[in-house]
Amino acid sequence: MIRFYNGRLLAMNGGMDVTGDEVWTDGSVISYVGPEKPAAERPAFEREIDLDGDLLMPGFKNAHAHTAMVFARSYADDVPLQTWLFDNVIPLEGKLNEERIYDLARLGILEYLTGGITASFDMYYLRAPYVRANLDMGFRTVICGGSAPYELIRAEYDRYNAIDPLIRYIPGIHAEYTVTQEELEAVQRLCSEEKAPCFAHNSETEREVMECRRRRDGMTPTQFLESLGLFDYGGGGFHCVWMDEKDREIFQRRGLWAVSCPASNAKLSSGIAPLQDYLDWGINLALGTDGAASNNALDMFREMYLACVLQKLRTGDAAACDAGRILEAACRGGALAMGLTDCDCVAVGKQADLIVADLHRPNMRPLLNIPKNLVYSGSKENVRLTMVAGKVLYENGEFFVGDDPARIYARAEESVKAMLSA
Amino acid sequence: MIRFYNGRLLAMNGGMDVTGDEVWTDGSVISYVGPEKPAAERPAFEREIDLDGDLLMPGFKNAHAHTAMVFARSYADDVPLQTWLFDNVIPLEGKLNEERIYDLARLGILEYLTGGITASFDMYYLRAPYVRANLDMGFRTVICGGSAPYELIRAEYDRYNAIDPLIRYIPGIHAEYTVTQEELEAVQRLCSEEKAPCFAHNSETEREVMECRRRRDGMTPTQFLESLGLFDYGGGGFHCVWMDEKDREIFQRRGLWAVSCPASNAKLSSGIAPLQDYLDWGINLALGTDGAASNNALDMFREMYLACVLQKLRTGDAAACDAGRILEAACRGGALAMGLTDCDCVAVGKQADLIVADLHRPNMRPLLNIPKNLVYSGSKENVRLTMVAGKVLYENGEFFVGDDPARIYARAEESVKAMLSA
Repeated sequence: MIRFYNGRLLAMNGGMDVTGDEVWTDGSVISYVGPEKPAAERPAFEREIDLDGDLLMPGFKNAHAHTAMVFARSYADDVPLQTWLFDNVIPLEGKLNEERIYDLARLGILEYLTGGITASFDMYYLRAPYVRANLDMGFRTVICGGSAPYELIRAEYDRYNAIDPLIRYIPGIHAEYTVTQEELEAVQRLCSEEKAPCFAHNSETEREVMECRRRRDGMTPTQFLESLGLFDYGGGGFHCVWMDEKDREIFQRRGLWAVSCPASNAKLSSGIAPLQDYLDWGINLALGTDGAASNNALDMFREMYLACVLQKLRTGDAAACDAGRILEAACRGGALAMGLTDCDCVAVGKQADLIVADLHRPNMRPLLNIPKNLVYSGSKENVRLTMVAGKVLYENGEFFVGDDPARIYARAEESVKAMLSA
Repeated sequence: MIRFYNGRLLAMNGGMDVTGDEVWTDGSVISYVGPEKPAAERPAFEREIDLDGDLLMPGFKNAHAHTAMVFARSYADDVPLQTWLFDNVIPLEGKLNEERIYDLARLGILEYLTGGITASFDMYYLRAPYVRANLDMGFRTVICGGSAPYELIRAEYDRYNAIDPLIRYIPGIHAEYTVTQEELEAVQRLCSEEKAPCFAHNSETEREVMECRRRRDGMTPTQFLESLGLFDYGGGGFHCVWMDEKDREIFQRRGLWAVSCPASNAKLSSGIAPLQDYLDWGINLALGTDGAASNNALDMFREMYLACVLQKLRTGDAAACDAGRILEAACRGGALAMGLTDCDCVAVGKQADLIVADLHRPNMRPLLNIPKNLVYSGSKENVRLTMVAGKVLYENGEFFVGDDPARIYARAEESVKAMLSA
């Protein structure tokens, strides 16, 4: 049991109130949230963490990730989109193997921890070594998978939803423009049998939507997937930059999640997703970093900040996109999008996926409004502690992930070198 | 004398090459840059800093700042521009006094140090306590001042250009839309007598330019100031979002500095300055944070990142705005804009305004391209050390500024509370 005391709490359990409540954990779950109890009524803790006025809050959920893509960080920046993708990223990606995925995923997970991210919604190749990296480090991930034939995705679904409480699996397809008919049918059948949600890259670029309309009888990616019944049990889309009125109506009616990746969309000049419209429509919102190839950081502070200020630029209205709504999307929204209904807020019985934000840094002062501070001036320098499932994985700049970070850096560098020279 | 060794050097002395050279300082200046010398040829150092592979580079120059405005951080976000300015910021600003400016400036300077900023180009009220804060903490600032009558600005100019090597003074006017005729004449006379450059807020919003044209016989702010001879000896503009072809021609011909503040311009929905056009025109470029009221962080990593990705959004071209050019603007450009020709790069005889970037963090790996890493995935977590004029003011999260940061936070919080309740 661990006790967090003498601090502030942003529980996000229905609102953005900051209280003085303390929090206890027991194993992987939160066992108490409330005012300080007299010493006699407190159990024996294995550790008592004096927050010293700092802020305890739910961790950020990275609701769209390709964690292992850190290999392409700073590999091909400031080049046209087509050059970046076809001459650089895809050829290098072809040199991945199981061991490299493991090495690279571990580097990505270290980065998540430095930024207070406690779970990622990951879509990528070679799931076995990726899952192993998460389990070895104690990190939480939801895999968004699409495979064919049916037997393969069924086996993955069963396997990864049973392997460990840290791992879950939600069906998905990469995108309308890459999916095969066989894969579509396999995912369709699985979603229908399991009443499972379905996610896909969706309307990231204007060109993608135009080409989809040409191929699919005038339907957008959203309309195409809806027509196949893939959203019958919920799900959502990654990016959602170019959504027409009918798409929005589908997202709204189905309770689908628009997972926005503002940094990636900016760097690749894909556009600015109309997040204020989505808020107005009551469309569910989450945020993701996308992969390091296109971001290049895996940093939810960056995503929150950009989400807000890009709306102000897009609408010409400095009042657009309230920071509190975006902070909620980054924590609670992401959890719910990923099906992590036990990781959405700080309450008894929920998973202890928590972070401590250091308020003893100049960028957090004065303490006029803590949620606005987090979104508009917060940065990774403010992450004092990151806890996943009740275990401290990162604290005061140090990692507790079962291996020396120097070794993880070295292995990742070696993998990238090998890929570049292969 | 201090020795930095066993690391990497980004000297920015004509290019973005990273070498293995070591650097020595002697007092406030750099005394050696080159390969390691045998122990027998090295002087006795007061300290030898093992970089352990980390990166030594010039500090960032915040070329547009209102340092003391940290009082308004998170005070009025997500409200319309006019409400923000007239109902919130200006009334609160009216409650500043000398002691509060001192307290708040010290908080702002702490924040600069955490982000590797080694100088600021500051335009604000009540210069005496601001200068005192800089001198007490050992920070470097160039005041951009405009006062009237002539005798007043002349006295300020003489006083602050002689008070200490850390302080300089460059004439400026707040903006075309606030300046009085008397102030214009005073600044004009001073610039002419001293052959001094002149800076001003310039073309921050479209409305500002339209209203200027109405008032000033069709002239834009740039054309108006040029017509008065205020740019005869150089200078530049803060923001420069809405510049027409004639404005750009004046900036290009005169070698004026466009000081861009992308974060502030985004948050207040002022627009995206056409930085790629300025680069194409050969217009001198520097970056600034503006004040915390509109940013809300004082973080040049944020400015560099935004400068690049907003150009990609604006132009629809992922190749727009090369990161190396923006990194140069943030360091060398800022120094030259502020007249700090001795702070622009790492070379013998230059001021030792240096930072160490921690490359042993996940966001800096792999080390494929260090300048791109700094711009696209770098953050304040990577600032290991900040040195101004040969003195280490910040290292490994600790401040060495002559006072306890807890006391500086407390004083700033008290000042803000007093202002809010006044």
